[in-house]
Amino acid sequence: MLIQQPTLVINKKICKANIRRMAQKAFQNRVTFRPHFKTHQSHEVGNWFRKFGVKKITVSSVQMADYFAEDGWNDITIAFPLNILEINRINSLAKKVKLNLLFESLEVLEIAEKKLKHNVGAFIKIDTGYHRTGIPIENIEKIDQLVEGFVKAKKCQLEGFLTHSGNTYKSSSKEKIKNIYQNAINKLHALRKKYKEPFPKLIISVGDTPSHSIMDDFSHADEIRPGNFIFYDLMQSEFGVCKESNIASVLACPVVAKHEDRNQIVIYGGGIHFSKEQIQINNINCFGKLALLNEYDWELLNEFYPLVSTSQEHGIIQLDELLIKNINIGDIVAVIPVHSCLTVHQHEQFITETGKLFFKFK
Amino acid sequence: MLIQQPTLVINKKICKANIRRMAQKAFQNRVTFRPHFKTHQSHEVGNWFRKFGVKKITVSSVQMADYFAEDGWNDITIAFPLNILEINRINSLAKKVKLNLLFESLEVLEIAEKKLKHNVGAFIKIDTGYHRTGIPIENIEKIDQLVEGFVKAKKCQLEGFLTHSGNTYKSSSKEKIKNIYQNAINKLHALRKKYKEPFPKLIISVGDTPSHSIMDDFSHADEIRPGNFIFYDLMQSEFGVCKESNIASVLACPVVAKHEDRNQIVIYGGGIHFSKEQIQINNINCFGKLALLNEYDWELLNEFYPLVSTSQEHGIIQLDELLIKNINIGDIVAVIPVHSCLTVHQHEQFITETGKLFFKFK
Repeated sequence: MLIQQPTLVINKKICKANIRRMAQKAFQNRVTFRPHFKTHQSHEVGNWFRKFGVKKITVSSVQMADYFAEDGWNDITIAFPLNILEINRINSLAKKVKLNLLFESLEVLEIAEKKLKHNVGAFIKIDTGYHRTGIPIENIEKIDQLVEGFVKAKKCQLEGFLTHSGNTYKSSSKEKIKNIYQNAINKLHALRKKYKEPFPKLIISVGDTPSHSIMDDFSHADEIRPGNFIFYDLMQSEFGVCKESNIASVLACPVVAKHEDRNQIVIYGGGIHFSKEQIQINNINCFGKLALLNEYDWELLNEFYPLVSTSQEHGIIQLDELLIKNINIGDIVAVIPVHSCLTVHQHEQFITETGKLFFKFK
Repeated sequence: MLIQQPTLVINKKICKANIRRMAQKAFQNRVTFRPHFKTHQSHEVGNWFRKFGVKKITVSSVQMADYFAEDGWNDITIAFPLNILEINRINSLAKKVKLNLLFESLEVLEIAEKKLKHNVGAFIKIDTGYHRTGIPIENIEKIDQLVEGFVKAKKCQLEGFLTHSGNTYKSSSKEKIKNIYQNAINKLHALRKKYKEPFPKLIISVGDTPSHSIMDDFSHADEIRPGNFIFYDLMQSEFGVCKESNIASVLACPVVAKHEDRNQIVIYGGGIHFSKEQIQINNINCFGKLALLNEYDWELLNEFYPLVSTSQEHGIIQLDELLIKNINIGDIVAVIPVHSCLTVHQHEQFITETGKLFFKFK
């Protein structure tokens, strides 16, 4: 197997260490570990989780739920507001597996009750401060109304409250991340208490890589759903959520041109291979960071050589006078992506550090 | 056919008008029209070009060249620096079609001469100011060296100089765009003159949607390779390159949640459906602009309702008090993408305004 085009490379050893660390935390805290599989979108990587006792998973779309159901996963939470237009596909899926859906309005619950043919688990999506979606935790009236709906519901069985503190991704300090987590969990506890009657067994499900990576105490949650931690990325290492050595995926890209006048190389690897996610590092807007590729593994560099620009297929990496002499056209370099979830999504296959090729969901 | 998920919708009528306008300009200027097919990546849309006499095309990768060769296109320029690692695939392709490759170093030319099994057309990629790649037009020494290489070359037949003035995409005024074009063409003319001996028939190939859209006189070029103009997008309409009514593709997205407290709706449509390309409009960083969907066609809105945020699968559109009352969960809205090339790439199928479904390259 020879790399000829931009190719996703995944280090299985690092992945397994990342899984082990998170699985141990979950075990120590006696919380259910329901990892989000939207980051890797792969049967193969999914299998690596099974060995750590993982039986329940999270996905971000009905299609992705289908893909993992095909591989034997039978307890799946679709962590996206129920899209009533997909009800037929959801019905087919709910016939085969234990499916958990997210609700945040009575309106959608009532439609689901009419159109669902099988029982499903249900979570109320709560917005604890990220303000993407979910019922704002302060909007007790709307939560009351929805809980009331679940009392009467027959197909949708309320299992708990679910939140995604995505605001931790924008927090530059560990202290802020901890505060966001603690604040969310405290509020969710108060909410659960309020609805002890008629729902004595509701669980609290949380999930974001930044807080779950830097904290050790999740004893107040019942379930954690981190996803990104399997690979991490430049954003997470820059924010201090992981070390660069914890990053488990890079993009291997052929060098197609050298510009020694400006110490830049052009790689085959652009916006369609990395996504256009960007981050500011040392006041440089960048789309990735150079590492060196050794066959199918990579070596981190102390120096910061940023992927400074991407168009559809081209990428430009800023080197210096020294390094540009050591990189040639036809070489393949490794680039650490800014946001692994989005970069991984762009590829339908990946190679592991031992040179094995696997197909994934796309 | 019912839209249930984020779905690319293409208006064939507008596309044909866009093609006609560009084909007429090419005809009037007596230049070859070799459109870039990386924007639509579709056999079907490719066919719409045939009716305007188009026989030569441009693509951005070897894979894409393969895809169009399969549909009978037999004169293809791969407008990306030749990636020598893909030489086997290039050989298979060059056996079947007239293939044109881009060179910008003697080193790559020498490798190509050794490894190519069939004759190919060759262009020297010249950087006339965009500074992505190509030999800087001032670097006469390097151009001399490469031209000298082509004198001896047997497989690679030099056909001309090629440039992509991508800097026009960053120019906010028509005057600046015209100047970039004129400057590039003047320099390329001087270059061609210099190499009249031993190459009396070299052509000048240019290609960028902004300049080709706003200018009428291309009489100094021999070939134009615009791509984006087939669909245009929010970036082009914002820069005054096209009208919003010329935009020929939108993403149809289901509404999955409403947040009346902040006049926002959440759509099923995120970074993996739009790409993360963004643009500043009225000081708002946005990923798209709302339009209304009527079955498979859309209606432009005078007001600006931006797609203000996208994560992997979610998008948030900022409405106002009035409009939010008229959009409901389960509705499907249209969103004009910031950069159609990248958005279109994310999809493997599209629907036309008459409800016909077509698969495309992905």
